[in-house]
Amino acid sequence: MVTLDFHPTGRHFLQIPGPSPVPDRILRAMSHPTIDHRGPEFGVLGLRVLAGMQRIFQTKQPVMIYPASGTGAWEAALVNTLSPGDPVLMYETGHFASLWNRLASRLGLKTESIGLPGTEGWRKGVQAHLIEERLKADTQHAIKAVCVVHNETSTGATSNILAVRRAIDAAKHPALLLVDSISGLASAEYRHDEWGVDVTVSGSQKGLMLPPGISFNAVSPKAIEASRSAKLPRSFWAWDEILEMNKTGYWPYTPNTNLLYGLAEACDMLLDPAHGGLEGTFARHRRWAEGVRAAVRAWGLEIQVTEAASQSPVLTGVVMPEGVDADAVRKLIYERFDLSLGTGLGKIKGRMFRIGHLGDCNDLTLMAALSGCEMGLKLAGVKLAGSGVQAAMDYFASHAAPVALRQAA
Amino acid sequence: MVTLDFHPTGRHFLQIPGPSPVPDRILRAMSHPTIDHRGPEFGVLGLRVLAGMQRIFQTKQPVMIYPASGTGAWEAALVNTLSPGDPVLMYETGHFASLWNRLASRLGLKTESIGLPGTEGWRKGVQAHLIEERLKADTQHAIKAVCVVHNETSTGATSNILAVRRAIDAAKHPALLLVDSISGLASAEYRHDEWGVDVTVSGSQKGLMLPPGISFNAVSPKAIEASRSAKLPRSFWAWDEILEMNKTGYWPYTPNTNLLYGLAEACDMLLDPAHGGLEGTFARHRRWAEGVRAAVRAWGLEIQVTEAASQSPVLTGVVMPEGVDADAVRKLIYERFDLSLGTGLGKIKGRMFRIGHLGDCNDLTLMAALSGCEMGLKLAGVKLAGSGVQAAMDYFASHAAPVALRQAA
Amino acid sequence: MVTLDFHPTGRHFLQIPGPSPVPDRILRAMSHPTIDHRGPEFGVLGLRVLAGMQRIFQTKQPVMIYPASGTGAWEAALVNTLSPGDPVLMYETGHFASLWNRLASRLGLKTESIGLPGTEGWRKGVQAHLIEERLKADTQHAIKAVCVVHNETSTGATSNILAVRRAIDAAKHPALLLVDSISGLASAEYRHDEWGVDVTVSGSQKGLMLPPGISFNAVSPKAIEASRSAKLPRSFWAWDEILEMNKTGYWPYTPNTNLLYGLAEACDMLLDPAHGGLEGTFARHRRWAEGVRAAVRAWGLEIQVTEAASQSPVLTGVVMPEGVDADAVRKLIYERFDLSLGTGLGKIKGRMFRIGHLGDCNDLTLMAALSGCEMGLKLAGVKLAGSGVQAAMDYFASHAAPVALRQAA
Amino acid sequence: MVTLDFHPTGRHFLQIPGPSPVPDRILRAMSHPTIDHRGPEFGVLGLRVLAGMQRIFQTKQPVMIYPASGTGAWEAALVNTLSPGDPVLMYETGHFASLWNRLASRLGLKTESIGLPGTEGWRKGVQAHLIEERLKADTQHAIKAVCVVHNETSTGATSNILAVRRAIDAAKHPALLLVDSISGLASAEYRHDEWGVDVTVSGSQKGLMLPPGISFNAVSPKAIEASRSAKLPRSFWAWDEILEMNKTGYWPYTPNTNLLYGLAEACDMLLDPAHGGLEGTFARHRRWAEGVRAAVRAWGLEIQVTEAASQSPVLTGVVMPEGVDADAVRKLIYERFDLSLGTGLGKIKGRMFRIGHLGDCNDLTLMAALSGCEMGLKLAGVKLAGSGVQAAMDYFASHAAPVALRQAA
Repeated sequence: MVTLDFHPTGRHFLQIPGPSPVPDRILRAMSHPTIDHRGPEFGVLGLRVLAGMQRIFQTKQPVMIYPASGTGAWEAALVNTLSPGDPVLMYETGHFASLWNRLASRLGLKTESIGLPGTEGWRKGVQAHLIEERLKADTQHAIKAVCVVHNETSTGATSNILAVRRAIDAAKHPALLLVDSISGLASAEYRHDEWGVDVTVSGSQKGLMLPPGISFNAVSPKAIEASRSAKLPRSFWAWDEILEMNKTGYWPYTPNTNLLYGLAEACDMLLDPAHGGLEGTFARHRRWAEGVRAAVRAWGLEIQVTEAASQSPVLTGVVMPEGVDADAVRKLIYERFDLSLGTGLGKIKGRMFRIGHLGDCNDLTLMAALSGCEMGLKLAGVKLAGSGVQAAMDYFASHAAPVALRQAA
Repeated sequence: MVTLDFHPTGRHFLQIPGPSPVPDRILRAMSHPTIDHRGPEFGVLGLRVLAGMQRIFQTKQPVMIYPASGTGAWEAALVNTLSPGDPVLMYETGHFASLWNRLASRLGLKTESIGLPGTEGWRKGVQAHLIEERLKADTQHAIKAVCVVHNETSTGATSNILAVRRAIDAAKHPALLLVDSISGLASAEYRHDEWGVDVTVSGSQKGLMLPPGISFNAVSPKAIEASRSAKLPRSFWAWDEILEMNKTGYWPYTPNTNLLYGLAEACDMLLDPAHGGLEGTFARHRRWAEGVRAAVRAWGLEIQVTEAASQSPVLTGVVMPEGVDADAVRKLIYERFDLSLGTGLGKIKGRMFRIGHLGDCNDLTLMAALSGCEMGLKLAGVKLAGSGVQAAMDYFASHAAPVALRQAA
Repeated sequence: MVTLDFHPTGRHFLQIPGPSPVPDRILRAMSHPTIDHRGPEFGVLGLRVLAGMQRIFQTKQPVMIYPASGTGAWEAALVNTLSPGDPVLMYETGHFASLWNRLASRLGLKTESIGLPGTEGWRKGVQAHLIEERLKADTQHAIKAVCVVHNETSTGATSNILAVRRAIDAAKHPALLLVDSISGLASAEYRHDEWGVDVTVSGSQKGLMLPPGISFNAVSPKAIEASRSAKLPRSFWAWDEILEMNKTGYWPYTPNTNLLYGLAEACDMLLDPAHGGLEGTFARHRRWAEGVRAAVRAWGLEIQVTEAASQSPVLTGVVMPEGVDADAVRKLIYERFDLSLGTGLGKIKGRMFRIGHLGDCNDLTLMAALSGCEMGLKLAGVKLAGSGVQAAMDYFASHAAPVALRQAA
Repeated sequence: MVTLDFHPTGRHFLQIPGPSPVPDRILRAMSHPTIDHRGPEFGVLGLRVLAGMQRIFQTKQPVMIYPASGTGAWEAALVNTLSPGDPVLMYETGHFASLWNRLASRLGLKTESIGLPGTEGWRKGVQAHLIEERLKADTQHAIKAVCVVHNETSTGATSNILAVRRAIDAAKHPALLLVDSISGLASAEYRHDEWGVDVTVSGSQKGLMLPPGISFNAVSPKAIEASRSAKLPRSFWAWDEILEMNKTGYWPYTPNTNLLYGLAEACDMLLDPAHGGLEGTFARHRRWAEGVRAAVRAWGLEIQVTEAASQSPVLTGVVMPEGVDADAVRKLIYERFDLSLGTGLGKIKGRMFRIGHLGDCNDLTLMAALSGCEMGLKLAGVKLAGSGVQAAMDYFASHAAPVALRQAA
C-alpha cells in the first residue's frame, strides 16, 4: 500500500476547500459490497439518491448523477444545452470561472468573458448589473447562456444567484442561466427552483462530504427543452437516456455504485431533522465562516473577498503581506503541523492561501486549523497584529451553535 | 442506510460479468481518508498507479486514467482521435459492440457495422478476414478507425486482437485500431504494445476488482499523433492536458482519489510475483472458465459462444432450451439462492444468462455459483442431461491451480 | 501488515465451528471510533446490548458481558457460585466438556466426571438419566453443581437441557445447573429461563457472528443467591459490581467497546422480525444442518454423533474410514481449496473433521464448503459411496428456506 | 445501529487518558476477516505480535497476551505469583493504585497500603525511600510483592520504577516487583528488563492505540519461578499453558484475533524507524505534555501532580479553583465542543479534570483540545490568568518535533 501520510502520528487536517474530510460514517457506507447495477436492490438505492439530491438542490425537477468528477458536469451542462459556435457569456469571479470558460472554448463555444477588470473581479461576487447591461445590448438574443459560479472556490466569493436571475429577467433575455455550485452546494444556501436556475452543476467532494467521483446537473424544464435542439455532440453526458432510465432508479451505463452508497448516507446526514436539516447545515457554515474571518481580521491580514455580503461560508482566502510567498507558508504549515491549506490559483498564485470550512466540521477542527495557521505564519516571519486564535475562540464561545445536541437514540 | 441485501443471512454471490466482487483488501484501501489532490502524498500515489497500469496494459506508452466509468472511456477514445463525420468500421460481436457503435453515431461519426449476419455474429469472436477485406476495398482510406471489442461481455466471446492487427496491416490500411477491453483487461490475456493497438479502452469494475468509477485509455504514438488533428470537440476527455499533468503524478482536474487507492492495491495484487504475476492471473481465469464450461456441457446446455478458441476466460453465456425464459430462471436463482447472474442483452434477451468468472474468484466461489445455477435450473423445470456441478468438481480436482500457496510472510 | 491469507485469490471459506465468519455489517459496526466508556453515548450502548442479550438468552434475569473470551466465562460461572473443594458433577460429552472439567480442577473444585464410557459418550448427547441416578445417590447433597455442555463443539452433539433440568428436579437435588452454550447460543434453540438453567456460559465468536473477545454469563436468582456465599477468590469475574454498574449501562472496568458495537448490530440482525427473529434463525440452522448431514450420508461416511435427536444444527463431525488421517485430508482441502475445517480433538484427533454451519451462512456458502470437502476427500483417496454435493443440492432445492426474502426498505 | 455521537457534525475529540483515539490504520487492520485460530496463518500472526510486544516492553522474556481487558491482567499478575493470605505492599499513588489494592484484597491477599498521607500522595510519584524503609523493617521477608503504578492514570504521576527496584535491592528484600503500566506503556518510557521488573501489567487501549480488549503480563525468570509454587487458584490467567502454546504462535483458548491484527499494526507503527522507533514515540509524548502543561500554567491553574519530575507524558490533571465543579465544566465542554475529558476519580472527584495526550496525537489535535478547554473554562465562569492556548502555541512553535517528516515511500 502506498504511504498516504508522511507525518509520523495523529490525524491529518484537510482544510482545503475540497475535497473536504469524508466522515467515517460515509466511508463505512462506501465499503458495502458492490452489487448488480441491474438488480432489484440497486433500483431502491437509485430512487433514493435521486430523491435525496432533489431535496439537496431544492428542486422538483430531475437531477442527473454522473459517474464522473465535477469538471465532467461542467461539460455536461454545456453539451446538453448548446450548439457549436453558440455565444455564451461567462462571468469571471476567479480561477474556476476562467477554467469553465476555457472548457467552453475548447468545446467550440464562442465565450465572452465579463466581469470587473484585473484582479478586482477576483475579490467580489458577480455584479449582476453588468450582466443585465450586456444582455440588454444583445438585442438579437445571440447569447444563448449566462454562466456564473455560485461559490468561487479560488477566492471565497459567494455570488447572489437570485440577483443574476433578476438581471436576466430585467433584460427580458432568453439566455439560459447555468450555475456552477460545485463547492457551494450543501454548505452554502442554494435554491435551484426558487432562484430560477436552468442548469446547476455540482460535485461530490465538497459540501456533500464524499470523495470525488460523482457529479450532478440539476435542470429546469427550459434546459430540457433546449437539450432537444442542442447540437454539440454528446453521448456519455446526454440527458435523454439518463432521464429515461432514472425513472426506475437505474442508469444507462454502469454507475459509481459505492459512491452512491456514500451519497445515500450523506443525504441522510444533511437532511436529518434532528440536526436542523439543510437550514441547520447552512447556519452552521455561516457561523464557522464568521469565526474564521474573525481570526483573519485579528491577525491584521486581508480577506481575499472584500465585499462582506459575498464572503463565503465555504472557504476564506487569506492574503499575505507584500513580499511573503503564500505557498512557502503553506508548505511550512503542512510539514510542521500536518495541515493542508488551499493554494492561491491563477492570477493570485503565491499571494494568498485558502482555509476550507466546508462539509464536515466542528468548532474544534477549525480551532486546530487556525492554530496551525497562526503558528505557521509566525514561524514564516509574518508579522501579525494579534491572535486570530483568540478572536475565533471569543467568537465561538459567545455564539452558540444553531442546533443543539441530538437526543440519545 | 439503504438496505442493500434483501436476503436474511450470508454473503451475496455476485457472479455477473462485472462489476465483479471487490476484495476486502481493496475496500480497505479505498477507506483511507481522502487527501489533497495537489499535495505531496498525492503525487506519489499518482505516479504509482500510472506505472502500475502500464504494466497491466503491457505498454510502455502513457495510460490515461479517467474519473469516470467505462462508457466515458469509449467516448474518450473516439473524441481524441477522430473528427466529425469520420467513417469508422465497427465490428459487431454483441450488445456492447453495438452500444459503442451507437455512442459513436451520437457523437457524429459515420459508423459502419461489420460482422456476421443475424445472431450468428454474437456466437463468435471477430472474424479478422472480414475486416481485411473491407479495408482492402477502402482504397481511398476513408475509414479512420477500426473498433473491436476484445472481450464481448454480452456473449462471452474473446477475440483475437493480434489477428485484427495483422488484418489491418495486410490491407496496408492506415486506420487506427481501437479496442474495448473493458471486461477483458486483467482477467484475459492482453498485450497493448505487442498487439499493435492504438487505443485500448478499459474500466475498473471487472478484472481490476474495483467498484465502477474509473476508466482508462492506453494509447500508441500514432493515436497521440492523431489527437493533434482530431476535430471532435473535447475538454474533459482531452489527452493533452492529462499527459502534461501526469508527468508529476497529478491530473488537470479532481481525480477519483479513493478509487486510486483501490487501484494501487489492485495493481499490487495482480502483479504480485508470489502469485505468478499477470501470467498467473491469466492462467487462473483460463482454468476457472474451463471448469464452468465443463459444467454447462454436462448440463447438456449450449454455450453462447460456439467457437472454442473464442470462449472467454471472463464469463460464460448459457443458452436456455427453447421455451425457457432465462430471466425467470435468473430471478428464481437470485431470490432463492442469493446469486446474481448476468441477463441476456439485446438480441438474445431472455434466451441466455451469463455466469461471470472474472476478477477475484476461487474454485469454491465458482462451485457455489454452479450449485446455485444447477438447483435453480431444476427448480425452473429445465431438463438437464447431467450434473454440471459434478463435472466442474471433476475438472477442478484433476487440474491443479497454476500457482500454489504463497509462503508465509 | 501480516499476510493473513496465503492463497492467491478469492475469499477464504471459514467453516470451522467457530470462530464463524463475521458479516461485513458487523465488521463495519466494529469500526466506529472508540468512545469514552464513562460518557453519555456509552450508557445508551450499554443498556442496549444488555437488553439485547436478555432476548438472545431468552431470560428476564441479568446477563453479564465480560471483556474476555469464552474460557473466561467458564471460569466466571464457577468462581461466582462455588467454594474451594466443592464437588461438581461434570458430564463428558466431548473435548470441551473435559476442558471445562480440567479448568474446574485447576480452580480447586472437586470434579467428578460422568457419562458413557470410552468414545461412546462422545457420539451422543447428555444421558439425563445418568445424572438423575447420580444425584439421587448423593443423599447428603454434597454435589454443588451439575455442569453440562449444550452444544459440544468437538463432536456436534446438542444435548437436551430441559431433560437435565427435569433429572435434577426428579432427584430433588439442590445442585446448580451450569450450562456451556458457547457454540450453541444464537444458532441452536436455547431458552435460559424456561429450561431452568442457573448459569449459562457463552461467547461471541459462534452464533453471535462476532470475532472472539467477549463472553457471557446468564444467571438465575438462585445463582445470584449462591454467589453471596461462594468462597472461590474472584474480582475480575465477580458479578456483584458488574450488576450494580450495569443498571445504568456501564461496567466497573473498561469494557470491550468496539466488540459491543458489533454485538448491538448482531442483536439487531438476529432479532430482526423481517427475518423471523430468533425462531427464524433456529429454523435456518436446522435446515442447513440437515442438508450437510444429507451430504455426509450420501458419501457413505459416518456422522460423529449417532443419535439423530442430538445431531447439532451448529456443526457436523465427519468420521473418516479406518486408515485415513482426517488432518491430512483437512490440510489438503485447506491448501487446495482455501477452506478451513475443524480438526478432531482429544480422543478423536485424526479420526474425524468438523464442518461448521453456524452463524452467518446461506445455502451456497455451504454448497461451496461441501464441494471443497468432496473434491478433497476424493483427492485424498477416500472412497465415497456417492455425491454428497448432489444430495445436499437435492435437499436444499426441495426444502425452501423458512423465511422468504425481505421486502425492499 | 446505536447512535454513537450525539453531536451533529465533525469528529469527536477523545482526549481522556484512555481509551485513546484508534488510528484509522488500526481500525482497518482490525477489519480483516477472522481466521482459524488453529490454522497456519494464525501462527505467523501470533509469533509476530509476541515478538513485537517484547520489543515494546523492552524485554527478552516472554510476554503474555490475554483476550481480556486490563483489569484482568492485574488479576493475572497476582494469581500467578502469590498464594492466599500473602502479604503484599501496595503503594497508593491514586485511584487506580487503590483499585488494584482492592482487587488484591478481594482475591484474598493481605494488602498493606503505603504512601504519603491524605491527598498529598495523589500529587506525587512513588517515594521509593518509603518502600525501602518498610522492606528493611520486614526482616522475616513476609512481604511477597511490592505493587506500584508506573503511570497513575487518575492523577498524571509517572513514577521512577528504577528507583523502586533500587529501593528493594537496597533493602536486600526478595519481594517481587509488580508494576502496572497500563496507561504508561508505549507513550511513557518503559524498560521492563533494565528496570528489573518482575511482572508488568498493561492494556491495549492507551499507548498501543487499540480499542480495549487485550492485556499483557511481561514477566521475569523470578516471576515464572514464583508461579511454580503460587497457590492462588487460576486457570484462565495461568501462565504455564500460555507459555507452552505461545512457542508456536498459538494460545490454549480462543484469542482475540481481530485485536491481534490491530496489535500487529500498532507494533509496526510504534517501532517504525522512519519515525524514530520507540524512543521517537517517547520524545513526542514528552513534548506534547510540556505544551499542555504550559497551557495549564498560563491559565493560572494548578497541575494535579506537583513534582515536575513525576508529571506524566500521558495525561495532565487540571485542578479547579475552589468552588468550581470540575464535572460541570467537563459536561459543558462535552456538550458544546464535542470534546471528552477525563473525570476526577475517588478522593479528587469534582476537584479536577484530566486531559489525555497519549497514543495517537499531533500538535493540532492537542491545540483543538486546549481550545475547547479554554473556551469551556471561560463559559463556566472560571477566571483564567491568561491564554493557555497562546502558551501552548508558543511552546509548540518554538520546539520542533523530535522526528521530521518521513520520506515518500
